[in-house]
Amino acid sequence: MNYFDLTETEAFRKLSAYHKGKPGLKELLTPEAVRKYVAPAGKDLFFSYAGKGITPELVQLCQSLADEQECIAKYRSLLAGGIANRGENRAVLHHQCRSAETDTFYAREKEKFYAFSDQVRSGAIKSSTGKVFDTLVQIGIGGSGLGPKALYKGLFGYCQAEKVTPILKGEFISNIDPDEPASVLSRINPETTLFILVTKSGTTLETLTNYAFVKEYIQKKCPAVSLEKQTVTVTAAGSPLDDGKQFLAVFHIDDFVGGRFSTTSACGGVLAATAFGREIFGRFLSGAHCSDILALNEKVEENAALMDALLEVIDVNIRRIPVEAVIPYSAALADFVLHLQQLYMESNGKPAPYATCPVLFSAVGTDCQHSFFQQLHQGPMEVPVEFIGFRQSQLGTDVQYKGSSSQAKLNANLVAQITAFAEGRSNADINKCFPGERATTLLYGDRLTPENLGSLFAHFENKVMFQGFLWNINSYDQEGVKLGKELAASALDMQNSDNPILKSYYSFF
Amino acid sequence: MNYFDLTETEAFRKLSAYHKGKPGLKELLTPEAVRKYVAPAGKDLFFSYAGKGITPELVQLCQSLADEQECIAKYRSLLAGGIANRGENRAVLHHQCRSAETDTFYAREKEKFYAFSDQVRSGAIKSSTGKVFDTLVQIGIGGSGLGPKALYKGLFGYCQAEKVTPILKGEFISNIDPDEPASVLSRINPETTLFILVTKSGTTLETLTNYAFVKEYIQKKCPAVSLEKQTVTVTAAGSPLDDGKQFLAVFHIDDFVGGRFSTTSACGGVLAATAFGREIFGRFLSGAHCSDILALNEKVEENAALMDALLEVIDVNIRRIPVEAVIPYSAALADFVLHLQQLYMESNGKPAPYATCPVLFSAVGTDCQHSFFQQLHQGPMEVPVEFIGFRQSQLGTDVQYKGSSSQAKLNANLVAQITAFAEGRSNADINKCFPGERATTLLYGDRLTPENLGSLFAHFENKVMFQGFLWNINSYDQEGVKLGKELAASALDMQNSDNPILKSYYSFF
Repeated sequence: MNYFDLTETEAFRKLSAYHKGKPGLKELLTPEAVRKYVAPAGKDLFFSYAGKGITPELVQLCQSLADEQECIAKYRSLLAGGIANRGENRAVLHHQCRSAETDTFYAREKEKFYAFSDQVRSGAIKSSTGKVFDTLVQIGIGGSGLGPKALYKGLFGYCQAEKVTPILKGEFISNIDPDEPASVLSRINPETTLFILVTKSGTTLETLTNYAFVKEYIQKKCPAVSLEKQTVTVTAAGSPLDDGKQFLAVFHIDDFVGGRFSTTSACGGVLAATAFGREIFGRFLSGAHCSDILALNEKVEENAALMDALLEVIDVNIRRIPVEAVIPYSAALADFVLHLQQLYMESNGKPAPYATCPVLFSAVGTDCQHSFFQQLHQGPMEVPVEFIGFRQSQLGTDVQYKGSSSQAKLNANLVAQITAFAEGRSNADINKCFPGERATTLLYGDRLTPENLGSLFAHFENKVMFQGFLWNINSYDQEGVKLGKELAASALDMQNSDNPILKSYYSFF
Repeated sequence: MNYFDLTETEAFRKLSAYHKGKPGLKELLTPEAVRKYVAPAGKDLFFSYAGKGITPELVQLCQSLADEQECIAKYRSLLAGGIANRGENRAVLHHQCRSAETDTFYAREKEKFYAFSDQVRSGAIKSSTGKVFDTLVQIGIGGSGLGPKALYKGLFGYCQAEKVTPILKGEFISNIDPDEPASVLSRINPETTLFILVTKSGTTLETLTNYAFVKEYIQKKCPAVSLEKQTVTVTAAGSPLDDGKQFLAVFHIDDFVGGRFSTTSACGGVLAATAFGREIFGRFLSGAHCSDILALNEKVEENAALMDALLEVIDVNIRRIPVEAVIPYSAALADFVLHLQQLYMESNGKPAPYATCPVLFSAVGTDCQHSFFQQLHQGPMEVPVEFIGFRQSQLGTDVQYKGSSSQAKLNANLVAQITAFAEGRSNADINKCFPGERATTLLYGDRLTPENLGSLFAHFENKVMFQGFLWNINSYDQEGVKLGKELAASALDMQNSDNPILKSYYSFF
């Protein structure tokens, strides 16, 4: 495999040169382009990219760049177990969590937690005081919290609408801020709560501290409850939490699945299968797997994740825009965008001789139309927007008001924003002028089902992977979090710390 | 008053020239600087800005810029009722909502909703079926939702800890997505719920549609409930919702308080006074008022809001960084940062011949250390960070684990991050190298009390106001949201729409 810096490639130079003379978006965004530039991103999920101002030449140049950086070959190598995490000399295997293969470590773990979840859901496994579990509290931070929470919140409404029974209530503790566990504990009944303690190393300070917090609270409030017998751990084999005697159950993850790529592993699976059942989680996995297959397509115009990656690299490295917004028009995806922020920025916010990952920010529409969209329409800097929308609502309850349903209004707003960003509107008064020419893309499907949510997770994971290949960076380590961890430990041992700045700031607290 | 573009001022030119030769942050950030560069931002809230790399010359040049743009004179004029919203030829009066004056429109409305909230809280005003209210649902979008929700969530834990009685449960409906009202309605008991319908114009499509949604739901599920008799409106006099016969009560706001500046008005006040009592809301207002007074200080180094504004203008217009992160180390402020996003970007994301408002993104610490901090430490682009932290937790429940409390760990992490951003750490391996020289500021206080939350709201409102003065833009209109609204109306009337792009995209839905 060849590894080139982006700017060393022939294709990038040609793409840069072509882009300078490319016609504007207002000229290129025609009804034909909207129909033509759509790629499948899942079984029922599509990626529309006409809003970037596409020409056949641009597609061809994107193809050349993808080919020169060997994006598909590198993806195939990753799938085959090659060393894709070059910094840490490791394979990257999260795709196996949703592959069709049954003879993998991940498939075997999945069968284990499926069996466990069946027993909790049927009431065969009960709490330490003999109660049926009705609540799950996931204790984990970063990838052990954000993705699983996005999965849970993303499918809760779907399961309600489809009358999945039972639905276990999900709560999440991640932050070391003691107000977070205190607040969650004030809302739950410890006698009917199963705790899912997720840390690959078994040593994450926030997670262990929060577990100690929970233990102390429960010992005081419900001494009859044996916390460990209501706790399952998700951890690496051999970690301090890999103790099937101490805990109700232990499920394994390993070093080949990074935290932010772990939602389809036991990190998200124990929670989702227990809360909603194995069938729902299985459908989520099948949606992710479908997108993984689609991402193998060598033709960029038919490969949604790769095209999405390439067009954003143009935004960042040719158009020199360091930010991107992802805006789902679906309230159920409010937590998904927080997961995306980690996925993007922790994976590709890496040192390089050129700009890499854009700052990703987000909120759900239409809320953000009444918040930061003012700046996106009229601010001096363009912010590319990736929209997500669905034909149907998740819960199916709606109202007709002034001649249309809320869902119709929601989607009318979505397409209106895309159109307004592209077309703009001129006005002699600068304060009433919309420059237009602002790029957007759109992921759309029929409804936010388990399959579509799985496809969304995988689409963005694969997009981020391809961007790592294009930028020639390692998307799978996170060296940048280490210094802060060490200094925090030093601050806690203040009498022995010799850092005067740390001491000065700490005196404020 | 003189109005100059930022780049036309003598002071900006001098500041730019000085900044080029300024020593680096590693050199300037000394324990003395940390002690010295602190300004009061509230009764018990302080703004530490040594992390920006401050010199006496820089302070002097900032002073010159503030003076040349007449920041304090413009603020005084605004307070006195001058036309600060020049685009719409209006006064800007949100400071009056928390001023000590009792003979204002806002003070009289406050007395009205205080009396109402007392009666709801005592049970003197009951639901239409004779029940005591225990839940509030605020229906409002943009400034009618984000700020009030941030206020409610910001003080809920404090009121729990201080055993305020009763505490009414707060729920929020803003989005036109039908899944949002459906989800909220599934969690509440209509017989004990008071609805607060907030729209200044009385015509906001999302808000009226959601009210219709609620009405249809309640008519089906609880026909005994008379929704209007359990609804108060917060609206402008003369609006379609200004109807004291139809609704349980009506409270007024007016055109001189913009949505994103309205949390201290009836928009936030009816909710907070009813949920927590007038005393708590009064303390919130007093904290905001204290910050308003502090922002009158002519000396920039003693004026937290003005200094914060100036240092960010340097980041944007001299250092040319188009993004900023605000990171509270307090889980109770998770919603506050969404309010800030609107406050910043809708106020100052305006057309100008130079960069204006940075893209604001955020999350709470320590969560984001395990999410996007990788990029902030090692990404090619610096992202200035404004931290917020408190000595004590809000709820007061804590645990000792490995020799320290969670609150001590939380704050150790905060100061460690500031130190790591500034100092960095060199390493021959670029993947292990932290460049350092990354700027931060810190707002800190003893605890997130009602007063401190009020000060935080006012600090950022005043910061945004000063930035509007510095950039010579109108922070008080929002022309940029109009085109999208018009096109959405057009999309809903598709057979009569003549926009082919709108139609093409709408065919996906």
